[in-house]
Amino acid sequence: METALNTLNIQPGTQKKLSLISFSGDFDKLVAAFTLGTGAASVGYEVNIFFTFWGLDAIKKKQGRALVGKGFLGNIFGFFMGGLRSAPVSRLNFMGASPQIFRYLMRKKNVATLEELVEAAKVLGVNLYACEMAMHILGLEKKDFIHEVKEVLGVVKFLEISEGGRTLFI
Amino acid sequence: METALNTLNIQPGTQKKLSLISFSGDFDKLVAAFTLGTGAASVGYEVNIFFTFWGLDAIKKKQGRALVGKGFLGNIFGFFMGGLRSAPVSRLNFMGASPQIFRYLMRKKNVATLEELVEAAKVLGVNLYACEMAMHILGLEKKDFIHEVKEVLGVVKFLEISEGGRTLFI
Amino acid sequence: METALNTLNIQPGTQKKLSLISFSGDFDKLVAAFTLGTGAASVGYEVNIFFTFWGLDAIKKKQGRALVGKGFLGNIFGFFMGGLRSAPVSRLNFMGASPQIFRYLMRKKNVATLEELVEAAKVLGVNLYACEMAMHILGLEKKDFIHEVKEVLGVVKFLEISEGGRTLFI
Repeated sequence: METALNTLNIQPGTQKKLSLISFSGDFDKLVAAFTLGTGAASVGYEVNIFFTFWGLDAIKKKQGRALVGKGFLGNIFGFFMGGLRSAPVSRLNFMGASPQIFRYLMRKKNVATLEELVEAAKVLGVNLYACEMAMHILGLEKKDFIHEVKEVLGVVKFLEISEGGRTLFI
Repeated sequence: METALNTLNIQPGTQKKLSLISFSGDFDKLVAAFTLGTGAASVGYEVNIFFTFWGLDAIKKKQGRALVGKGFLGNIFGFFMGGLRSAPVSRLNFMGASPQIFRYLMRKKNVATLEELVEAAKVLGVNLYACEMAMHILGLEKKDFIHEVKEVLGVVKFLEISEGGRTLFI
Repeated sequence: METALNTLNIQPGTQKKLSLISFSGDFDKLVAAFTLGTGAASVGYEVNIFFTFWGLDAIKKKQGRALVGKGFLGNIFGFFMGGLRSAPVSRLNFMGASPQIFRYLMRKKNVATLEELVEAAKVLGVNLYACEMAMHILGLEKKDFIHEVKEVLGVVKFLEISEGGRTLFI
């Protein structure tokens, strides 16, 4: 973020802020969240993304359908959630074929894919946070997530961080 | 809210504001809305929740699948919506078993359940509003809702109340 | 907008702003977006709606299930998306009967229907924008949309336009 600020010549204290609550694990909504987040970061916004519930899937280290999460029920949710590479589309999912079609279309049209958008978010200094309560319910721990996750937070702390800017629930 | 303000020593006019449009009746999204709402209220925010469409389910007095709503079609929606205790999960609903699993996990992990969150919202002075237009479409009346519902409002009035703070559509 | 401003005697520079990212093509969420948008515009807000992904459906010129969109896969999505008149409801869709029921209820109760709300948005000077990236992925062009669409934009440009007001993701 420092670098981005310097490059863009933004005065401290005048930086715009965009915060996203990434609740849905749907492929298309994750694309939307990361497109907004990286777009905003690329023009010097402070960007905070708070992953909660199904959204936690996007930041899991272990991709694919795996038994992540403690306890039997945690495992079941971990299995069905399955991480970034198995995120379903919110509509017209065609039994799981749709994300593949989207990936194909995005690749073909030279649009950044979801994986590339996540990479870009890391590079652009987007702040990634994980929701403490949802992790607790789903039996997930910080070590289950990619190391770019900055902090595990509660809702109140996130409200504080995101104060003074726009916040979208996706 | 008065009490909360006094306890937290907040100057009048400097109070932060969080407003939520609770559109979805999904169990997990209601949990998200009430977690955000009670979290914000607990640190002195003015919190306004505007229930509309499926979200109206969360504030119905009569719980369970009941024929609430006037007219035959209103009845059908009332029956399928069914209130807080039959709210489905937005994903992986497993034919209605998933909310029970979530409730079990939340109880086991000592996380406040949805019912407890709704209770907390009342105690913390969260302002609950019902959407006039959606009530009209679904044939619902103020008497169908819990008495904590402060007012039946149109969208314009809610925009006015929520002006000057953040608003999330959930 | 000029007219609305004059009628309402609003000072330039003090105008309130509401921006909506219309991502979902669901009938009920489109009703929510246009109700918020027209409601806000009717009391003098500057209203910007950014249509992306499934939301693009709402502004398509050619209604009904048609092969809009270039290429075979674009065609498939075009066919299943099908435009405003075939938008499904996000819950309880009853194999496509539900939007009809909603339309019936809205007509019967004298609530503006979705088509009427879209018309109202045009009359009230609501700014309609289409998302460049989603159009690119889905193979849509500006000529596929109703002529009231003001501009085709990227996310960064929309963030700039919507800065200084509230933004909701619907």
